[in-house]
Amino acid sequence: MARVHNFSAGPAALPECVLREAQTELLDYAGSGMSVLEMSHRSATFQSIIDDAEASLRRLLGIPGNYRVLFLQGGATLQFAGIPLNLMRTGRAGYLLTGNFAKLAWKEACRYGEAEVLATSEDTNFDRIPNLEAAGERASRNDLDYVYICQNNTIFGTMFSELPPTGATPLVADVSSCFLSLPLEVERYGLIYAGAQKNAGPAGVTVVIVREDLIENGPARADICPTYLGYQLQAAKGSMYNTPNTFGIYLCGKVFRWVEQTGGLTAMEARNRAKAELLYDLIDHSELFHGTAQPTSRSIANVTFRTDDANTDAAFIAFARERGIEGVKGHRLVGGMRASIYNAVSMESVEALATCMRNFEASWSPRSI
Amino acid sequence: MARVHNFSAGPAALPECVLREAQTELLDYAGSGMSVLEMSHRSATFQSIIDDAEASLRRLLGIPGNYRVLFLQGGATLQFAGIPLNLMRTGRAGYLLTGNFAKLAWKEACRYGEAEVLATSEDTNFDRIPNLEAAGERASRNDLDYVYICQNNTIFGTMFSELPPTGATPLVADVSSCFLSLPLEVERYGLIYAGAQKNAGPAGVTVVIVREDLIENGPARADICPTYLGYQLQAAKGSMYNTPNTFGIYLCGKVFRWVEQTGGLTAMEARNRAKAELLYDLIDHSELFHGTAQPTSRSIANVTFRTDDANTDAAFIAFARERGIEGVKGHRLVGGMRASIYNAVSMESVEALATCMRNFEASWSPRSI
Repeated sequence: MARVHNFSAGPAALPECVLREAQTELLDYAGSGMSVLEMSHRSATFQSIIDDAEASLRRLLGIPGNYRVLFLQGGATLQFAGIPLNLMRTGRAGYLLTGNFAKLAWKEACRYGEAEVLATSEDTNFDRIPNLEAAGERASRNDLDYVYICQNNTIFGTMFSELPPTGATPLVADVSSCFLSLPLEVERYGLIYAGAQKNAGPAGVTVVIVREDLIENGPARADICPTYLGYQLQAAKGSMYNTPNTFGIYLCGKVFRWVEQTGGLTAMEARNRAKAELLYDLIDHSELFHGTAQPTSRSIANVTFRTDDANTDAAFIAFARERGIEGVKGHRLVGGMRASIYNAVSMESVEALATCMRNFEASWSPRSI
Repeated sequence: MARVHNFSAGPAALPECVLREAQTELLDYAGSGMSVLEMSHRSATFQSIIDDAEASLRRLLGIPGNYRVLFLQGGATLQFAGIPLNLMRTGRAGYLLTGNFAKLAWKEACRYGEAEVLATSEDTNFDRIPNLEAAGERASRNDLDYVYICQNNTIFGTMFSELPPTGATPLVADVSSCFLSLPLEVERYGLIYAGAQKNAGPAGVTVVIVREDLIENGPARADICPTYLGYQLQAAKGSMYNTPNTFGIYLCGKVFRWVEQTGGLTAMEARNRAKAELLYDLIDHSELFHGTAQPTSRSIANVTFRTDDANTDAAFIAFARERGIEGVKGHRLVGGMRASIYNAVSMESVEALATCMRNFEASWSPRSI
């Protein structure tokens, strides 16, 4: 079968050239006589692989020298605990609830300290990024260990277009679904982290970028923080306190280099905005499809939309699948459809989806349902 | 370059046929039009992959219906915390210290409760499995939540030839480096776990097999256990509370089926014992090489040996490498050499190593060093 148009929210489409390179090297990496899958993480060859991956990421994001890069396991979910266990030094942090994952992170933090809700959009089923002013004011009292956001909300299709003004309080951001979609000002954050499986590589790697001074004294809750989760230790050991997901890191490195070769993050942002605009414009002019996120909060990575009828949604999803378009079913918390248009989703795929939406709408009549 | 003879302790050699299958499927798995690396973990296709992997493992080990199988991340190291956080209900457990990883697991448990040392062989640098009688007697008082062992000690080349008699006290075993090397009586254990990167697949997957009654009430330390590490939740969610290491699980499934097709665990044990005996026999008749583990405690998975001189060890390792033999440098805690002869290491590779050792010894004279 030909490769499909893959709009999965994660694990998600990877650049075909990355897959082809990995395929070629699968039994013999760079003349080593073995697969990366079989290679000791203590070997010089693997050390080059992880060093090169980090160097490429540092170039892409312009990561300052006082930030450490970690490649961990356990997904964003494990970091929901890792963040308070490492950073809640006085025991109080602020959370902005803009979706399901932000809320889960907040609940996890509540077990380790006082996690204040600084803003929420739950009253309208997280269809928007709330006003950030109150959060900024609260942060200015300088008694929070950090302010936490989920910068792009995969399920709800919303994204922060500006960051909350947290002043000297470190900003912690789950950027899983917008990581490498656009430039980030790393200096604005205390910690950024991302599950790789959306835009950076395969499932099983979590990239953590953290300002050194926040971790240099070890975990805030060293008494109960699992050793594995200690950022300071993992940084000191180059993410290899124990065996990391070696093959996953190798693939992330290939994706990072592909992003560099494709023009870097400014080029990615332009491509992603063009893809998103194509779909949002179609949705805004459609009589059948409606966007579910408020226009000023729209994501450039996850485009959520629906019809007014769950059966029509299901019919569209089946119609799309018959045309080689996969992964457009929305999350059950929103319903409808979601097109995740990460870096590796081409404009050609987005155009195929747009054509499919237009054709479905043209053939659709309320009586036919 | 031809594929080398890979004696790495982990990540370690994988069956070539598994790698070739994965290579063929890397851009299009089973006509799905996408790589397993790109596939939603919520898709029916991935659900079959994880279900088939579990079913194959259940057949191989004869896992009873009241045991749950989990595919987690974070390596054995994360489970050093996961085990006490889930199982230390009264706050007291017993640990047998037979090597570095057992000791790390014990240290981690000390943070969450009282972890008694029931036996240790640290006085002779972990060159043996200690007498198990005292541990059995201590367990018979029935006031321990579990007794913990590391069944095969990768670094020191030792292996339990029998299990400690723990009676009704659940036995918890890190079997990372002997998992699938030989049959296990699953009923004898409360929990078995293994980092996949030695004998079961790639780095980034940890298999946990746990008796249902030990986890059904949630983590013992639900107040502080990271949600990700809650065995009961992960079991209820089929290891997919969050995105698992999908590609790693896919490869583990392929390795499990390869073991089945190669005759199962009885056949694996016979092959592994034959490989180990070849090397131990050579070592026992050598004037140059000496085994570092006491003979009655020897591992069938990791064969540790050395000469009397660190320079000669280094010369042998270089000599072997020139002959396409990789990964035989011993761990720094023991020095010398280590040949990890997991399932995917063929008798042909072991014979190549044996020939190399004989040739090195024949060419060796103390004056030449």
